[in-house]
Amino acid sequence: MAKLLEGRLVVAALKEKQQAAVARLKEKGVSPTLGIIRVGERGDDIAYEKGAIKRCESVGVSVRVMALPQGATQAELIELIESVNKDVSIHGVLLFRPLPKHMDDETVRGALSPQKDVDGIGDGSLAGVFTGADKGFAPCTAQACMEILDHFGYDPRGKRVTVIGRSLVVGKPVAMMLLAKHATVTICHTRTADMPKACRDAEILIVAAGRAGVVGKEFFSPGQVVIDVGINFTEDGKMCGDADFEAAEPVVGAITPVPGGVGTVTTSVLVGNVITAAERMAGCGQ
Amino acid sequence: MAKLLEGRLVVAALKEKQQAAVARLKEKGVSPTLGIIRVGERGDDIAYEKGAIKRCESVGVSVRVMALPQGATQAELIELIESVNKDVSIHGVLLFRPLPKHMDDETVRGALSPQKDVDGIGDGSLAGVFTGADKGFAPCTAQACMEILDHFGYDPRGKRVTVIGRSLVVGKPVAMMLLAKHATVTICHTRTADMPKACRDAEILIVAAGRAGVVGKEFFSPGQVVIDVGINFTEDGKMCGDADFEAAEPVVGAITPVPGGVGTVTTSVLVGNVITAAERMAGCGQ
Repeated sequence: MAKLLEGRLVVAALKEKQQAAVARLKEKGVSPTLGIIRVGERGDDIAYEKGAIKRCESVGVSVRVMALPQGATQAELIELIESVNKDVSIHGVLLFRPLPKHMDDETVRGALSPQKDVDGIGDGSLAGVFTGADKGFAPCTAQACMEILDHFGYDPRGKRVTVIGRSLVVGKPVAMMLLAKHATVTICHTRTADMPKACRDAEILIVAAGRAGVVGKEFFSPGQVVIDVGINFTEDGKMCGDADFEAAEPVVGAITPVPGGVGTVTTSVLVGNVITAAERMAGCGQ
Repeated sequence: MAKLLEGRLVVAALKEKQQAAVARLKEKGVSPTLGIIRVGERGDDIAYEKGAIKRCESVGVSVRVMALPQGATQAELIELIESVNKDVSIHGVLLFRPLPKHMDDETVRGALSPQKDVDGIGDGSLAGVFTGADKGFAPCTAQACMEILDHFGYDPRGKRVTVIGRSLVVGKPVAMMLLAKHATVTICHTRTADMPKACRDAEILIVAAGRAGVVGKEFFSPGQVVIDVGINFTEDGKMCGDADFEAAEPVVGAITPVPGGVGTVTTSVLVGNVITAAERMAGCGQ
């Protein structure tokens, strides 16, 4: 039976650290604040926003929501971003995407100050993840995978790690972060010839395929640590990951559940990034 | 006996394309020009500069060398970069590094306009390589590996490719470029537990270890394509790669020689990037 890598345990540990960090900042007169910029009223965005606000409040981070109507122009959005860039009382910004179709994603992303890019969407952040430089922020989901490994004591150093998926929100950044931790990293994707073998060979397997059920029994091997980033819904509305949990669980050494795994940790990482941004701006390290 | 992947054949093919592109630009009144910025008189820099000038001239690309004395201040260098950024008659910039110790590499790199960053050193270029966006330029050596594979008809799609090395000038960018071409990429480095196995398993092996003789017989397998990025010198002054050529040659399917392999192609890639930069500025595609 595999060890269950429960996100709530990671969240609890992060929460404790974050509360202490917020207390230190408040002593210095800094109240770490997340600015949420939203265009329109998409259900997904609102749900994530609610979760983020709750998680922020639980550690003493303030939130300011700035919503524009769906029909807002790109110029209005950029004007808002620029005013937030200048606002010293906002330390990190969460900008919901995808943006409405009449806006250019790259231009909008590019307007956000790298210092406040706590969700890791801008070129400065992406370059930082790629180069390993300590600037900007890594995308939260990728960072959540690293937090889980770290919390449960799985050091990627010298380990064979396979990442399924090459997206900019998970696959590529998590591969770079694992590489920085001295893992030997293999990146697989839909064009990979023998994905089950590449996965079985791995000591740590990061699954970010983006589709339910693509990772079955033949992908797993004894002792493996499996981090499942997938969030999918079955026909009867049940949430599930990309990996076949029932098939993995009797074989592997440890696995994140879905729900209750990576997704649970992502918001805590975002909150942590806001605190780090506030610390950087206040000129003190974590 | 392995097929020899000679750089000069790639250079000849690129030269033909580049001459045609330069002719098209000159018809439009654009004379593609490389600006070389050098601080001091390091032998390595001067040797590379000579090669770059010769290669540029061979296809009709002009060169302007701007040299500052070794004792120049960072402010003077940045002032020079900024004036070159604005100079519409210079399309691409080669900035020699490492810079003198009294300068901050990141600040200086950051001053260079991404549009003119033909050597792929700035964050914009690095983010472009990481995201796969068509902006900035990939580091020339990484791109040279791709040109060699392309020229000799080795499509990385669906292939197992192992990259030895995780530097920002070769390992990481070439891994991202291979991934964009749909290879299954494994990145190895000094902390990799069983590097010979990871290398033998690969259909294409990119060797950028940065040290002579680290890649021996046990790293190779029949039919493999080996691209050796290494440039080292033996005690008696002979140039050699990172791979043991004598050991590889009877086993693998194809291999780049050193000298005469990747290094030969790098300057041609730089020249090609200057032409691409001029085309982008003139508003026409390649």
